[in-house]
Amino acid sequence: MPDPQTDTQSISRTFIDRFKTVRNRFLRLVEPLEIEDFVVQPTQDVSPPKWHLAHTTWFFEVFVLVPNVPDYQLFHKGYPYLFNSYYVAAGERWTRAERGYLTRPTVKEVLAYRRYVEDHMLQFMGGREMDDELAYVMEIGLQHEQQHQELFLYDIKYILGHNPLFPAYNDSEVCIWGDVKPIEWLSVKKDNYQIGHEGKGFCFDNELGKHEVHLEAFDVANRLITNGEYLEFMQSGGYENHEYWLSEGWEWVGKQAYKAPMYWIKEDSQWMYYTLEGFRPIDMNEPVSHVSFYEADAYARWAGCRLPTEFEWEIACKQHELHIPKDAVFLDSELMHPKPTEGYGFYGNLWEWTSSAYLPYPFYKAPDGALGEYNGKFMVNQKVLKGGSFGTPKEQIRSTYRNFFHPHLQWLFSGIRLARHS
Amino acid sequence: MPDPQTDTQSISRTFIDRFKTVRNRFLRLVEPLEIEDFVVQPTQDVSPPKWHLAHTTWFFEVFVLVPNVPDYQLFHKGYPYLFNSYYVAAGERWTRAERGYLTRPTVKEVLAYRRYVEDHMLQFMGGREMDDELAYVMEIGLQHEQQHQELFLYDIKYILGHNPLFPAYNDSEVCIWGDVKPIEWLSVKKDNYQIGHEGKGFCFDNELGKHEVHLEAFDVANRLITNGEYLEFMQSGGYENHEYWLSEGWEWVGKQAYKAPMYWIKEDSQWMYYTLEGFRPIDMNEPVSHVSFYEADAYARWAGCRLPTEFEWEIACKQHELHIPKDAVFLDSELMHPKPTEGYGFYGNLWEWTSSAYLPYPFYKAPDGALGEYNGKFMVNQKVLKGGSFGTPKEQIRSTYRNFFHPHLQWLFSGIRLARHS
Amino acid sequence: MPDPQTDTQSISRTFIDRFKTVRNRFLRLVEPLEIEDFVVQPTQDVSPPKWHLAHTTWFFEVFVLVPNVPDYQLFHKGYPYLFNSYYVAAGERWTRAERGYLTRPTVKEVLAYRRYVEDHMLQFMGGREMDDELAYVMEIGLQHEQQHQELFLYDIKYILGHNPLFPAYNDSEVCIWGDVKPIEWLSVKKDNYQIGHEGKGFCFDNELGKHEVHLEAFDVANRLITNGEYLEFMQSGGYENHEYWLSEGWEWVGKQAYKAPMYWIKEDSQWMYYTLEGFRPIDMNEPVSHVSFYEADAYARWAGCRLPTEFEWEIACKQHELHIPKDAVFLDSELMHPKPTEGYGFYGNLWEWTSSAYLPYPFYKAPDGALGEYNGKFMVNQKVLKGGSFGTPKEQIRSTYRNFFHPHLQWLFSGIRLARHS
Amino acid sequence: MPDPQTDTQSISRTFIDRFKTVRNRFLRLVEPLEIEDFVVQPTQDVSPPKWHLAHTTWFFEVFVLVPNVPDYQLFHKGYPYLFNSYYVAAGERWTRAERGYLTRPTVKEVLAYRRYVEDHMLQFMGGREMDDELAYVMEIGLQHEQQHQELFLYDIKYILGHNPLFPAYNDSEVCIWGDVKPIEWLSVKKDNYQIGHEGKGFCFDNELGKHEVHLEAFDVANRLITNGEYLEFMQSGGYENHEYWLSEGWEWVGKQAYKAPMYWIKEDSQWMYYTLEGFRPIDMNEPVSHVSFYEADAYARWAGCRLPTEFEWEIACKQHELHIPKDAVFLDSELMHPKPTEGYGFYGNLWEWTSSAYLPYPFYKAPDGALGEYNGKFMVNQKVLKGGSFGTPKEQIRSTYRNFFHPHLQWLFSGIRLARHS
Repeated sequence: MPDPQTDTQSISRTFIDRFKTVRNRFLRLVEPLEIEDFVVQPTQDVSPPKWHLAHTTWFFEVFVLVPNVPDYQLFHKGYPYLFNSYYVAAGERWTRAERGYLTRPTVKEVLAYRRYVEDHMLQFMGGREMDDELAYVMEIGLQHEQQHQELFLYDIKYILGHNPLFPAYNDSEVCIWGDVKPIEWLSVKKDNYQIGHEGKGFCFDNELGKHEVHLEAFDVANRLITNGEYLEFMQSGGYENHEYWLSEGWEWVGKQAYKAPMYWIKEDSQWMYYTLEGFRPIDMNEPVSHVSFYEADAYARWAGCRLPTEFEWEIACKQHELHIPKDAVFLDSELMHPKPTEGYGFYGNLWEWTSSAYLPYPFYKAPDGALGEYNGKFMVNQKVLKGGSFGTPKEQIRSTYRNFFHPHLQWLFSGIRLARHS
Repeated sequence: MPDPQTDTQSISRTFIDRFKTVRNRFLRLVEPLEIEDFVVQPTQDVSPPKWHLAHTTWFFEVFVLVPNVPDYQLFHKGYPYLFNSYYVAAGERWTRAERGYLTRPTVKEVLAYRRYVEDHMLQFMGGREMDDELAYVMEIGLQHEQQHQELFLYDIKYILGHNPLFPAYNDSEVCIWGDVKPIEWLSVKKDNYQIGHEGKGFCFDNELGKHEVHLEAFDVANRLITNGEYLEFMQSGGYENHEYWLSEGWEWVGKQAYKAPMYWIKEDSQWMYYTLEGFRPIDMNEPVSHVSFYEADAYARWAGCRLPTEFEWEIACKQHELHIPKDAVFLDSELMHPKPTEGYGFYGNLWEWTSSAYLPYPFYKAPDGALGEYNGKFMVNQKVLKGGSFGTPKEQIRSTYRNFFHPHLQWLFSGIRLARHS
Repeated sequence: MPDPQTDTQSISRTFIDRFKTVRNRFLRLVEPLEIEDFVVQPTQDVSPPKWHLAHTTWFFEVFVLVPNVPDYQLFHKGYPYLFNSYYVAAGERWTRAERGYLTRPTVKEVLAYRRYVEDHMLQFMGGREMDDELAYVMEIGLQHEQQHQELFLYDIKYILGHNPLFPAYNDSEVCIWGDVKPIEWLSVKKDNYQIGHEGKGFCFDNELGKHEVHLEAFDVANRLITNGEYLEFMQSGGYENHEYWLSEGWEWVGKQAYKAPMYWIKEDSQWMYYTLEGFRPIDMNEPVSHVSFYEADAYARWAGCRLPTEFEWEIACKQHELHIPKDAVFLDSELMHPKPTEGYGFYGNLWEWTSSAYLPYPFYKAPDGALGEYNGKFMVNQKVLKGGSFGTPKEQIRSTYRNFFHPHLQWLFSGIRLARHS
Repeated sequence: MPDPQTDTQSISRTFIDRFKTVRNRFLRLVEPLEIEDFVVQPTQDVSPPKWHLAHTTWFFEVFVLVPNVPDYQLFHKGYPYLFNSYYVAAGERWTRAERGYLTRPTVKEVLAYRRYVEDHMLQFMGGREMDDELAYVMEIGLQHEQQHQELFLYDIKYILGHNPLFPAYNDSEVCIWGDVKPIEWLSVKKDNYQIGHEGKGFCFDNELGKHEVHLEAFDVANRLITNGEYLEFMQSGGYENHEYWLSEGWEWVGKQAYKAPMYWIKEDSQWMYYTLEGFRPIDMNEPVSHVSFYEADAYARWAGCRLPTEFEWEIACKQHELHIPKDAVFLDSELMHPKPTEGYGFYGNLWEWTSSAYLPYPFYKAPDGALGEYNGKFMVNQKVLKGGSFGTPKEQIRSTYRNFFHPHLQWLFSGIRLARHS
């Protein structure tokens, strides 16, 4: 449970503004879509955009309005069943794998659902002081919606990028990455370090319980691996040589149609990729993206290095990039692509795979109730990522933020930072 | 190959009218849909409605315009790949199972595609005499489009009927079926009979080659089995007793979630079904529909009877229902449900499962070229159905028409007529 | 139901001899096996040899001894569950797909089971007159055992032939096939013909109900297609050209690792095959074997012909090969390979695929009780084969015998005879 | 790489004795088997016993004899292909999932293979000094064989325990577990601790690189959870309540036929289990075994505790059980079941699931060559287990030994020890 907030009245006011900002941002993000784009689920990990719009609304309806607003009328009694994701405690759910079979409710109806719930939320928030528990639930609601906005970006990229017509999502200009310099190494000394969140701001349950971790001396790279560097790995037989791969990674390679990051396609003799701005030649100086953990790990082994643990990453970040740089690229910029920045790039642009399994911290305790399912129950078979991406809102990111995905997934905005023993 | 047509000029004029009629009917059929309904493919046998709209258009583009119109420009060079179905000879195809992942082209673009091809077709037909070969291809194009209009009805019913909100497709009034009388039997004598199409009208290659078949004496029922009669089968343990079932049918039963015709759901103690007019109590006097061949066959065995062969059906129909009755219910009525009629009901309302495997007639020869793939290559593991349904246009139906589907399928407009040895 | 037998006493005596002969033959057939060979099930269609030994014994135990011998003690109360195959009416069964997981009972125990049941059978048969019903059940028991002996040969060939060490099953000398002459055609006139079994001898329920069938004039080839002829088909791109294939056949080809009959492997530039005598170069003059129906059908289309229907086959056989030739190769010869014979080869050597779906004859009626499951419930999605193979005992074969398998199967002893319209 | 050994001559002599002991033990372990038991693979994780016998022999042949003995002749040129497991660098392999389809070589041939390789090994070892590299390879060979002997026990238990006849593997008497006392807690203080192997003895690469780990204060239980305690969890709805389960664990539960540890079956109202001594009533005081990590983790959560990390386990063991107790139950006792012992039971009886993911230690480096595949490539999606079982030879076990399995597996000899924060 996060630190209690004392001045509940003022929170409420700030919160209303943030609530509006976050909710409106989703509408802006879906503006470039055609109605048809909202409906499909080309693979199980992708959810239909209209499902995201509705599910994030369901969260406020079921966890805030239903328990707190007397006589609240559900917008539609069938929606809780349709738009619950995995909260077992919150009741039955429509099968995840079949989200893409539902043509109704329509996008228009989903947008009406959003407005209905927003109206009730604003009315509710305006006339009421929040206690800590409610503040926590509402905060989670906002965090949750922002996480789904990022997932939406992964998903719409997948939907459009797997269509042979390769329609662009947005038409903003694409930045060119200049020449990259050789990697330099940032050192961290052998010592005990403090890990985990402290302070007043929000954090998730999985970051809580400040505790000590002992680290041996190590270095991390001062930048991410580029497309050009990754192509060298490919051209030197990276996908054909089992030595670089974990056993399950090697099996995974065997099943892939393309031996390359997701969205890379070789046309004639040129490597192209699908980006949210459309299908175009690969910028070789840009950080490589859409690699699975297996690929990141294999690349690191090929390069004679390794990936950092989540603890190494966190301490290196705290020591070498004291604050989030002003030019760090987050969702707030509404730029839909990584962009060169000053500094070492720990924050923004791309999530960075770590070698750490996603496990509980020593003092971890899942919150009670349905929200206890938020993080803890996924603590097996997943890998931690750090630092946020151009799809993450700046307010969500911290050095302690622990993102997690299965090691075979490529569709997220993921990148590679190397580490080594000093 | 059908009988050659002599007056090519006059054909052309009739054909243009039929072309317009058929093409416009599809637009009318999709009018009740929301944009979202056009996109999805909830099971492999269902195609997205916009795919049907585009695929039937592709047929005219690739088989008529491209080979016959000098300098014809494709509407979009990516469409032939997207909208070919199974014509191997006509080039590569987008995987059938992934039709529901394509959000683009949009419905609007598909409709523009339809208009573009229609304009070129009209221009082409207006200024040209048709030889027999071209007449044949264009006729197939129209037949093909009408078959897909019927498939579209199966598919939209599946899409809406598997949505837990059960939205209605149309809001026309539903007819009530009056009391049914006990079955009476129509007899046919042991003899040799002529099977197969003859005469000037169009028919498919699989109906050709008039030939003799010897039939032993038999009877067929004078009407279809009703929902009420089928419910008796269910209530007497029809789905729990292996004796009534073919071995593969029994396996199929084991895998079904609902032991009932498709769209039947028991709510509290009442049997309901989804119809194109919405979710409502079952009319017990109406003919049972959405049964697989396995169910039709099991029902017949339970009733101490059997299904007719396709030859028995054809001869019984020819002897007892000399012409298609005026009140027979076809797509032309745009009524989306079976309706009581005079006569024995051989034509219209519901397709009738026969016990015959779909096999070539003795003199069968597939046409050359890509259209040779139309019928012949499906002649294994399928069952013949006869008589047409409320989704079939009247102009398509004949006593010799051979429809065919796999024995496990329920989503078509199928019904049961019993037969027995005299 | 077969013709009743009047002199029950004498039947009994003959039957005892046949019973001994048949049972002993199985022991002789398994003599070349190692204990290990009895246990495995490398694919669902293959059963472990010890399962065949036990299952054929179970048949006599459960259908003869249990209902007829007072106080009969089961050899082991767990065996009926383990060795029932698909007789739903005869109780629960061990899953077919998991027969190859059972190491116990051991081969030794299974052989003891055989002896135990044989002793009781002999004792039972010696002291008793058989009524018609019992005679029928016992006859089915013998027929059943002989069918499983043939299946055992398919299975042991599969087991040894899919082992990379290619151990031989037997070491008898292999016959050389001399040069083959071009096909000549045997004609049959257009007429009505009698189909189905008549007379006193045994036949299965699926052959019963003598009835008329009308045939158009046709020719059938005077011999089977050879390995050399089939290789021509392969070398002319037979497996690469969809035109020759049924749609489901073409899908099946896409999934096959080897584009060839089962057991064919190209080593360096020579085509080899596994035979029961070991791995050796293909004899190009021998009839091609281990082809699926899809391959037989595709070959026929490539050759500008077709396969005969089961009715055409039966009438051509009756007209052109009046009796089973003395040199026809059946299981009785215990030669484990086809061998050249005089005549047209309708009987023995290899089963011949027909184009007919396996369906009931017009007057078909399944027997009551568990034995009613013997034939009738498989009458969907299978193809009829005629004439027997070197694995069929001569006493089983008749021109009316209807064997049936799914169209994708290659592991049986199947061959190709062409037909055409006269 | 382990510590270099100086006196190569003396090693060699000891090694020969250990080699004989280990190799002979396998022959003793398979003595109770019938030939049939050696052949099958009822699930992918189980290998046929004869495969284990051959694979452990292949290891010596391919890694010792082939590179070191001039003119060494392979016993059979086909065996390396058949008996390689997962060493990609050592060449092509027979598919793992199809090991149970191979009836040849026979058990007799495999035993001859063992003798052949043993004879050559003894001859080779007798006449030669070993350098460090060879000593390492041979040591790995012995360790490897012993690991497979334990796996063999898991596998034969699976093979016999999934046979409905439940044949016993051995007939030794079963020990009775006396009443258990309530759990007491062993405390460890917050501090930095040394983790990883040091000293002269053998260890695996994954234990190397002694390094510091910081631990917060914690307690571990002084004994394992019993069958009776686990049954309480079951009876209080443990398998029906998602709250106790990781999300992937809950999915796993949904797919299980039995909601219980492997080998538990409820007959009438009594809980029975299959043990290597046969099918019998569960001893409620015995430690629960054959639980997956998911079950261990769910049990711990239900009990208000958690599992220890591998580091906590290792330090608690080092502090509280200074030496391996004399009565600890290992494979050497050839007792095929856990048995009560003095002390806290860290060593022997059952492997103990930890909450740690199997990951590399900070200084981990895989050895070069094919043996580099031994441990490192499995470092994803697996869980660490500690302490050894009654199937582990005593010489293999150390407090630093890291065993690892996927979290869903039940077929190993696994148990549950609880931990909690002090």
